[in-house]
Amino acid sequence: MASDHDLVDVLRAVADPIRLRIVQTLADGRPHGKCGTHWDFGVHKSTMTHHFRILREAGLTRTIVTGRSHSIQLCREELDARFPGLIDALTAGPDRETHR
Amino acid sequence: MASDHDLVDVLRAVADPIRLRIVQTLADGRPHGKCGTHWDFGVHKSTMTHHFRILREAGLTRTIVTGRSHSIQLCREELDARFPGLIDALTAGPDRETHR
Repeated sequence: MASDHDLVDVLRAVADPIRLRIVQTLADGRPHGKCGTHWDFGVHKSTMTHHFRILREAGLTRTIVTGRSHSIQLCREELDARFPGLIDALTAGPDRETHR
Repeated sequence: MASDHDLVDVLRAVADPIRLRIVQTLADGRPHGKCGTHWDFGVHKSTMTHHFRILREAGLTRTIVTGRSHSIQLCREELDARFPGLIDALTAGPDRETHR
């Protein structure tokens, strides 16, 4: 069962422009390659690695390693169960229609 | 129209245990006196003043001054319009039933 403590950890993780965009990109629930061009946010690869780690450690994402390929996936079902409506609120808003 | 920038500001403001509880307390949308016992989180009054200021400057709350009494109110309608479902997600969850 989720506590405020867990929720604060998740909020801290997404309270960053790049990490919020990562979560919005992952909101479809599918695994996304860690090296894809859709992560081209104009920051260094090591910075992206840092953001990916923050999200994973906060319980927002999982990493899937297949052979030599690393993918990242939002823990969508777990998050929807623990924090109902939160991912929807972060991804679906009046702004999404024009900015995506 | 809300942007990611605004959303990140709001997320930063609520990504704190005390500020999250303040928002949960204010979620009813009614004005609450700033000196009420329901703000007894075991921190100094100046710390609460700091938290109230962060929330107000992020656009989450407004302060209402009547005579010598200061009240705080969640900008519930504005927030629901700009970030649909966000306040609900912060206040209604599986944990709320047992902890409130």
